[in-house]
Amino acid sequence: MDAAEGLKKIAWAEAHMPLLARIRDRFAVGRPLGGHRVGVALHLEAKTAALIRTLREGGAELFVVGSNPLSTQDDVAGALDGMEGIQVRARRGESLEAHHANVDWLLDNSLTLIVEDGGDVSVRLVERGSHTAPELIGICEETTTGVERLQELEADGLLRVPAFAVNQARMKHLIDNRYGTGQSTWGAIMGATNLLVAGKNVLIVGYGWCGRGLALRAAGLGARVFVCESDPVKAVEAAMEGYRVVTLVEGMRLADFVVTATGRPGVVGEEALAAAKDGAVLANAGHFGYEYDNAALAAMASGPTEVRAGVEAYALPGERSVYLLARGELVNLAWGDGHPVEIMDISFALQAMAAEYLVVHQQELPMGVHPVPDALDDAAARLVLEHLRSE
Amino acid sequence: MDAAEGLKKIAWAEAHMPLLARIRDRFAVGRPLGGHRVGVALHLEAKTAALIRTLREGGAELFVVGSNPLSTQDDVAGALDGMEGIQVRARRGESLEAHHANVDWLLDNSLTLIVEDGGDVSVRLVERGSHTAPELIGICEETTTGVERLQELEADGLLRVPAFAVNQARMKHLIDNRYGTGQSTWGAIMGATNLLVAGKNVLIVGYGWCGRGLALRAAGLGARVFVCESDPVKAVEAAMEGYRVVTLVEGMRLADFVVTATGRPGVVGEEALAAAKDGAVLANAGHFGYEYDNAALAAMASGPTEVRAGVEAYALPGERSVYLLARGELVNLAWGDGHPVEIMDISFALQAMAAEYLVVHQQELPMGVHPVPDALDDAAARLVLEHLRSE
Amino acid sequence: MDAAEGLKKIAWAEAHMPLLARIRDRFAVGRPLGGHRVGVALHLEAKTAALIRTLREGGAELFVVGSNPLSTQDDVAGALDGMEGIQVRARRGESLEAHHANVDWLLDNSLTLIVEDGGDVSVRLVERGSHTAPELIGICEETTTGVERLQELEADGLLRVPAFAVNQARMKHLIDNRYGTGQSTWGAIMGATNLLVAGKNVLIVGYGWCGRGLALRAAGLGARVFVCESDPVKAVEAAMEGYRVVTLVEGMRLADFVVTATGRPGVVGEEALAAAKDGAVLANAGHFGYEYDNAALAAMASGPTEVRAGVEAYALPGERSVYLLARGELVNLAWGDGHPVEIMDISFALQAMAAEYLVVHQQELPMGVHPVPDALDDAAARLVLEHLRSE
Amino acid sequence: MDAAEGLKKIAWAEAHMPLLARIRDRFAVGRPLGGHRVGVALHLEAKTAALIRTLREGGAELFVVGSNPLSTQDDVAGALDGMEGIQVRARRGESLEAHHANVDWLLDNSLTLIVEDGGDVSVRLVERGSHTAPELIGICEETTTGVERLQELEADGLLRVPAFAVNQARMKHLIDNRYGTGQSTWGAIMGATNLLVAGKNVLIVGYGWCGRGLALRAAGLGARVFVCESDPVKAVEAAMEGYRVVTLVEGMRLADFVVTATGRPGVVGEEALAAAKDGAVLANAGHFGYEYDNAALAAMASGPTEVRAGVEAYALPGERSVYLLARGELVNLAWGDGHPVEIMDISFALQAMAAEYLVVHQQELPMGVHPVPDALDDAAARLVLEHLRSE
Repeated sequence: MDAAEGLKKIAWAEAHMPLLARIRDRFAVGRPLGGHRVGVALHLEAKTAALIRTLREGGAELFVVGSNPLSTQDDVAGALDGMEGIQVRARRGESLEAHHANVDWLLDNSLTLIVEDGGDVSVRLVERGSHTAPELIGICEETTTGVERLQELEADGLLRVPAFAVNQARMKHLIDNRYGTGQSTWGAIMGATNLLVAGKNVLIVGYGWCGRGLALRAAGLGARVFVCESDPVKAVEAAMEGYRVVTLVEGMRLADFVVTATGRPGVVGEEALAAAKDGAVLANAGHFGYEYDNAALAAMASGPTEVRAGVEAYALPGERSVYLLARGELVNLAWGDGHPVEIMDISFALQAMAAEYLVVHQQELPMGVHPVPDALDDAAARLVLEHLRSE
Repeated sequence: MDAAEGLKKIAWAEAHMPLLARIRDRFAVGRPLGGHRVGVALHLEAKTAALIRTLREGGAELFVVGSNPLSTQDDVAGALDGMEGIQVRARRGESLEAHHANVDWLLDNSLTLIVEDGGDVSVRLVERGSHTAPELIGICEETTTGVERLQELEADGLLRVPAFAVNQARMKHLIDNRYGTGQSTWGAIMGATNLLVAGKNVLIVGYGWCGRGLALRAAGLGARVFVCESDPVKAVEAAMEGYRVVTLVEGMRLADFVVTATGRPGVVGEEALAAAKDGAVLANAGHFGYEYDNAALAAMASGPTEVRAGVEAYALPGERSVYLLARGELVNLAWGDGHPVEIMDISFALQAMAAEYLVVHQQELPMGVHPVPDALDDAAARLVLEHLRSE
Repeated sequence: MDAAEGLKKIAWAEAHMPLLARIRDRFAVGRPLGGHRVGVALHLEAKTAALIRTLREGGAELFVVGSNPLSTQDDVAGALDGMEGIQVRARRGESLEAHHANVDWLLDNSLTLIVEDGGDVSVRLVERGSHTAPELIGICEETTTGVERLQELEADGLLRVPAFAVNQARMKHLIDNRYGTGQSTWGAIMGATNLLVAGKNVLIVGYGWCGRGLALRAAGLGARVFVCESDPVKAVEAAMEGYRVVTLVEGMRLADFVVTATGRPGVVGEEALAAAKDGAVLANAGHFGYEYDNAALAAMASGPTEVRAGVEAYALPGERSVYLLARGELVNLAWGDGHPVEIMDISFALQAMAAEYLVVHQQELPMGVHPVPDALDDAAARLVLEHLRSE
Repeated sequence: MDAAEGLKKIAWAEAHMPLLARIRDRFAVGRPLGGHRVGVALHLEAKTAALIRTLREGGAELFVVGSNPLSTQDDVAGALDGMEGIQVRARRGESLEAHHANVDWLLDNSLTLIVEDGGDVSVRLVERGSHTAPELIGICEETTTGVERLQELEADGLLRVPAFAVNQARMKHLIDNRYGTGQSTWGAIMGATNLLVAGKNVLIVGYGWCGRGLALRAAGLGARVFVCESDPVKAVEAAMEGYRVVTLVEGMRLADFVVTATGRPGVVGEEALAAAKDGAVLANAGHFGYEYDNAALAAMASGPTEVRAGVEAYALPGERSVYLLARGELVNLAWGDGHPVEIMDISFALQAMAAEYLVVHQQELPMGVHPVPDALDDAAARLVLEHLRSE
């Protein structure tokens, strides 16, 4: 653990997160989170650190754990831990027991706000009994998965505070899913394989916001784009963009690169995998690592053999090979640094403003999961435009 | 009036409207509109004739007037009028009195369905008293304007039947507004001016679905695109596409071509017009001809002088000229043949299916304005995909 | 003939030809063509008039005929004929005898310079004997065809003066062929057919400079682009741009629109025509109207039937139809106003500077056909950049 | 040194180099290089190994050194060294003395052919006296630099054999420079910085083949592209593509990313650097690391401070920072794996065919530097097309 290295990473991120910088300046004056005790459970890397420091600047005291032991960067955690008003308990690769112990430690701190990614803290809180956090006024949740877990709690009558579904903001799915996923996924695929994209056939499975970004960037890199999409209206949109709409099996026969972004398990199943073109590179840009049916792949193919870092070959019948990237996990997190810094700046600006909103409107907000207010979405967008204009 | 010429135009349109063709085939078997008396008030040109003939094939008897005396094509009206089961009363340039008389004639025919564009027939029906059309079971309305008039009737308790807002279907605004408007507007601007688009600055005012199509095609023609948009989230989307987001006045200073698509009156007002670059070409792609403040333009400029067919020059102070196309009316209707045939095929397929739906579900549908059911949207999309696949 | 209308057309063109405007300003001061008698044989329309008036401003006396009786616009010819120092003999649709008589009249005027398009004047001069134009110092030829005729004269020892092949300038083929042809051809196809380009398959036959522009604009309109090209290196370039490289027959089977730009006769022959997809639209963007084998088409198909102005249907075996635009002639001249004004501004600026160069360097230039000096190419490019910068 | 790792890298490369694979198959049958002793001096990494093994398959005996001690990959060198008919002397980071000794060892092997990158072997041969390699029949040189050194030798009468300038092949500069540089440079910039490209201003300095690829991919990633180019005709081409043509200083004021590809030293000098926008990222895609004037930068700025691996910050007056990537060296080699595999497949296929050509035509080829014959260019292109077609 080299805290100096962590500080350097944080400085690079903060230098490229102008929205958080403006919020930090405003928070430093108004101290809207003064007296609040905020529990944070996020991927502990440099961009997240910028959010944590912004909340601190707003007057809060911060208690921090990682949301996933595998994504914690020890140098960043170490750098943060030394800062005034910030306590961190997280270590890369720590055991699940250690992670759970850290979550419990977090909840022992009389939290007034929770900012998290995945819902672990909120679920644990309910397990312990909501009365164990009597001062809690609200939750900001970053991910779809976490929001779904909160909604289950709400359905069971167990969610006793308001919670914001940051993921559903327009600035999140219109910008992050499309332009963040588009760039970072192709950056990762190019880096992992060193293969040319121009002149190749690319199959995008799923034409939602992520799929649109993936298709746009594939075309921008010179590929011919094929789209497989079950919603017929979206499929017509893809056709009108000049992409070729195909069934999954047709697409697999043609594609040199396949990228999934459907959010559904096993979308690329046995029949599709059996149809794959020799040499096809298979990558996933959806949140979970289950869009390729790995079990079916293992059953029909010999392998896997690691042929490059993060690239595993499977030998299919008929002298064909396919290459699965990052075992089907999110390729842009497994290879490279994830979303571009400025994209996370937008998403984290929404988080910081949502936390402030919970404090200011704590009397009015009913219990339950809420969409982020339009006003915050607009405010984030206005900050982006202001920054562009200032240039 | 040359009915032979009209038949030729109808044949060209029908040859390129595969969705209506498939519906026509299905209608010819099932005759779902058998016994119905349908009153039609639409722009009477070849593409519309294909819809009318499809309804006829479904078993309906058709009574037809124009929705606007200026858009009626006499050869098409003449060709239709001779066909079995179709009666037409419309003449290009007829007086408003004649038009109103035609609408009254329409309503004298014990209509069971109304298919229209703009709401004139529905409004007149209410004036006459809804009891004068006792057999009417529903209305299909094509335009935003017509829908708004129907909603006013509904609010006043005067709409006694169900009405479908065809305009609000996803296949309408996602496809027609974006790809139809994009192509036909630029086709019209290029034709009207004979000017080069590549290397020019293009300002798109309004980044809704029409604006997105206009920007996409401008970039595709080699222009640098500037976008002015009041919704900050949409403005960020434009920036992420690589367009430059500007204020209206900044954009006017830079733009060689300005295209409006906001739907709001006087959006390009005095200050913006005063800032216009010398030689700027001003066009409108929004439904109404009021997006440029023509009165302000007339007050500050000398002119207009017609310098090419449909192109009027205004001389501004400082030795500058601007060129207003089609007096600010929808440029793609004023110059050329409007939307591409295949685009209207989709919109009219929705109309035909909506009429069928009204008949089949007449017992269940409550009074009032309804969105087109998702099932119809999906069915239209599936027909497009089927057609693409059959190729 | 309405000279007022002609003046209006000329005014529109000149207002959008900033390069000629700057040259005109310079010519008005320096009068580099003072005392020269220039014979002009060009397509007599508004853009050409701007060139003629520029030469006049340089001090020359102008004698003008049309280069093709079918392209002469009488209102423009009439407007020009009234101007000081300009005499015109041309009428739309005049007989070949009349045209030849006009060319002879031209040569009776002791010309010192010839500016032409197609080589008719130069060839006639040789027929009459070069001694009949003793004061002639040079020729500026616009087209490939004209240059080839001059090269034949040169090979036969009959070309007694220097001649510039304006067509071979970089600013001509890199700009005019690519961006001029790209825009004007697609404008014409969209206007002639009212069909949608987005989502369609487009086959470009020939991937030279014209073909590149045609492909670029097709992709920009939302089409999927297929390219057929015999030079393998060019074909690889097309593949790297994301286009699909196909054989002609494969391409014909898939294409909704086919555009030829090879310059070679009968390129799309019997086998290819027999493979055409039902409904295919066939257009030509090459200089001559012979790229489709019309004889083969007539032999295998019934028709043609005109189905829209300039659109002829041929019925092929197997219930298929294809639509030939403008009988296979250059579609952008047959439908619409040809190249955008600013494109002709560049080409005609080269003409004007080439004429000046011939005068200034008349002592040094040997007999024979010469490429336009790089300095003129660069000067034209610099004028474009200056104009862009001044905006 | 882990030869197993090296074998894995070579296997990945060879699996994606179909042109070399086809040549290898042909060579294995015809053995066109049988009995030849080939000296190779190239960047010793996996893609190069595929070329070396192809030459071996053609019957040659191979003697191999690195062309640059810093680019040698020891695992690849080790894997190669164990193969039959291949001897390698190279070590990453070896001293210049060791490198020179290796070159001398190479020349001690009675070479008949030299395949190299940079000209070191040819120059050393002349130093030793051409009589020391009496059996040498020719040289294949990959780079511009090497070709220039050979041309100097030729001018001095010291080049006694034919040499092919592989770099000047059309398939090299049209494909490798454009699509290889475009993808690999942006892959490297995105990886090195984790910054967003969409919505940013990108300045491309130099609009040659590399610059065109860089601009194309920047636009494809959603950037607004600015181009600085001294050749006015090329600058007009850039404008027609929709890029904004600027002076260097204007561009520097606006650009978030600057990428140079001019091949000229110190192109981005003091005045330009002083104008840089705060936060600008400076990268070089030209062959040599001298396009930014590092001395001027050091003089006007404090720093450099390494802020991320390969990213150095310079603090300029006025609270501005700029970030120089890879100290101004070729960013796509310094970060990542260089050109995509398939691009090097094309360039190395040209090398292999050029070596074969030298053997077959050794009687006919005069001494001196020659362009690669068109037939080889076409053959390489045909192999690409064949491979695309076979898919």
